[in-house]
Amino acid sequence: MSDLPLPITSAPSREELAARLEAVRAGMADRDLDCFVCFDPVNVYYLTHFANEVHERPFILVIEPTGVPVMLVPLLELTHVQERARCELEFVVYEEFPAPPGRNWHDHYASLIDPQARVGVEPAMPVGIAAKTPGLVVVSDLLEEVRLIKTAYEIGRTVHSCQIINLGHQRLLERSHPGVTVQALAAEASQVMVARLLQDIPGANRIVTTVRAVIWPPSISHDPHLVPSPTTQLEPGGPHVTAVWGQVDGYGVELERTFFLGHVPDAARKPFEVMMRARARAYELCVPGTNMGQIDREVKQVLVDGGFGDRRPGAGGILHRTGHGLGITGHEAPYLADGYDRELQPGMLISIEPGIYIPGLGGFRHSDSILIDDQGPVTLTQAPDTMDDLLLPA
Amino acid sequence: MSDLPLPITSAPSREELAARLEAVRAGMADRDLDCFVCFDPVNVYYLTHFANEVHERPFILVIEPTGVPVMLVPLLELTHVQERARCELEFVVYEEFPAPPGRNWHDHYASLIDPQARVGVEPAMPVGIAAKTPGLVVVSDLLEEVRLIKTAYEIGRTVHSCQIINLGHQRLLERSHPGVTVQALAAEASQVMVARLLQDIPGANRIVTTVRAVIWPPSISHDPHLVPSPTTQLEPGGPHVTAVWGQVDGYGVELERTFFLGHVPDAARKPFEVMMRARARAYELCVPGTNMGQIDREVKQVLVDGGFGDRRPGAGGILHRTGHGLGITGHEAPYLADGYDRELQPGMLISIEPGIYIPGLGGFRHSDSILIDDQGPVTLTQAPDTMDDLLLPA
Repeated sequence: MSDLPLPITSAPSREELAARLEAVRAGMADRDLDCFVCFDPVNVYYLTHFANEVHERPFILVIEPTGVPVMLVPLLELTHVQERARCELEFVVYEEFPAPPGRNWHDHYASLIDPQARVGVEPAMPVGIAAKTPGLVVVSDLLEEVRLIKTAYEIGRTVHSCQIINLGHQRLLERSHPGVTVQALAAEASQVMVARLLQDIPGANRIVTTVRAVIWPPSISHDPHLVPSPTTQLEPGGPHVTAVWGQVDGYGVELERTFFLGHVPDAARKPFEVMMRARARAYELCVPGTNMGQIDREVKQVLVDGGFGDRRPGAGGILHRTGHGLGITGHEAPYLADGYDRELQPGMLISIEPGIYIPGLGGFRHSDSILIDDQGPVTLTQAPDTMDDLLLPA
Repeated sequence: MSDLPLPITSAPSREELAARLEAVRAGMADRDLDCFVCFDPVNVYYLTHFANEVHERPFILVIEPTGVPVMLVPLLELTHVQERARCELEFVVYEEFPAPPGRNWHDHYASLIDPQARVGVEPAMPVGIAAKTPGLVVVSDLLEEVRLIKTAYEIGRTVHSCQIINLGHQRLLERSHPGVTVQALAAEASQVMVARLLQDIPGANRIVTTVRAVIWPPSISHDPHLVPSPTTQLEPGGPHVTAVWGQVDGYGVELERTFFLGHVPDAARKPFEVMMRARARAYELCVPGTNMGQIDREVKQVLVDGGFGDRRPGAGGILHRTGHGLGITGHEAPYLADGYDRELQPGMLISIEPGIYIPGLGGFRHSDSILIDDQGPVTLTQAPDTMDDLLLPA
């Protein structure tokens, strides 16, 4: 197994951001685009280090093949952007949303782009903004493509993010007992994560910093996206399923485990073991050059062969793909998913998390945040994973 | 002044949600739409009480003039929606994102809508989803319109949300001293808010529940959207500006104050007083029937007459409108903004928050969450507002 890259906690250099911009421009050239427009705050953050929360006042970044990118910003936010952005930008300032005719954001926007231009926009751009975009609008996943392969800087940031959530997850397991509420555990785990995070990155940007820690007790762990109510209590036995997610000053990761309190119900042994087998198969398959759709199909086959292949709505069994990409968000391309016809490459960051869900019994899923390097998977998160180590005292 | 409506903490009744759906259908008829498609999770929550976080797997709600609305959901989330939604829904389930050809979300979506239909979509719908919407796509603010006037239930929920943030704000002011970090204060205020929130609503949905408490010390309070780093410390003097925001189980509100620690700098007295005069003018003007653009113009005139009318980018002065709507989000229509040519009506919820920003001195803004009733403004948030009451011991 490869060495873990060193963690990074500093803000990106101008060179880092310039290289990202150049990658976008290379993609524009490949796609014959005269201009690319970013609205998605994730992409704006990726390119500028400025984070915003989407509300009704748009921030729009206009990138042409050369020159300094132009950002359309509300007057209220100009100094905010100037303070946070770490790349050169030109600004066009609009008064407010809404504003009197002739002074709205779209009045300025109309003058920023040549009406003859081929203009790339993100699939996530709101149709209300796309409709006001001058030129021939081409929906393009260029930014998604550029973000697929991480730079050494992004990998170092992600290694650090994993150090933070490792701490929170360890605290979750330490304090788990029947009767403890999900909220109490979340508060404890968050506290330890935030304390360390602020020690490491005193200037962390709150807009792109969130830590969350959740546990699904066995009565609801078969329903993996039903976030438990805060007053939900842990139960004797299991499977309980943890999820610790962190977006640590802009870099998102996750760590999840299936655990038991006091005893392992007999019916839980086989699905746990089959999940572990599928997970081991995923690790074997996650080497550069393997087709990601193929990985998902082979991993799911392990679940099917183990007797847990039901896919009827409401029946449980297999509910989701083997994994997803990590980056600024904790959920993005690439996907370890049947139908995602693309090769795994060094520099990708993914989760590996095949799961089994059985109504009346519970859910079985471990998830780790993984770097793909030249050799294969490098696990960046750390937590016990065997049934022995995950049988905790009740 | 009118009596405060009673707080409500229960989930919406089926009748409440049915009335909202009927309002959407009436709007569809007015706009000659055969179908309306909701993607924005705020609108989906408004109509169903199901909350989701946007990621790559879309949830799409298809509403026709009669019959049960259809929701396109990922397999992973079916039971989640069934558990949370409080209205009748039919489901069309897709396997995963992405999926093999013929089994993707858009393959199912294509069959849900008549290709001859006039289909309303929200301005916030991503262009990547709009592009896969069958029929003639019409961008429409119908849902924004329907949400402008609140029901008695929504008003009761909002009264409760304000009770929660009142507590957090009180704690912020109690614990503010020079040298205390923004993070420590945020943690204390959040704790008191979360404790009360869970006492009142033990089953609060985490996806639509967030409380935040921030203070801008005077060195940065002139930059109202530059969220301070967590390690930022309060300073002697002022103006400090607080912001407590809560989305309390789905209902968003805010409370903000300008305060001083130990002494009031001489230069701060006049802008505070002019801000208070503008605020008083806003309260006078906020009666049903008044044009909201006109309110903003008259309130800003008070700031201009007071000598704080600069609007040049980077110069400070007036940076934003007088107020915005509140609802599921804390930032939505209607707007007290020049150019928003519409009358204030009973049942609207708005913030009133004229502000003055002076680089080198700081920001001056109070914000309250306000109900407009038949008589005028009813202030739902509570905190001291005079300079005497906001001069706290250092």
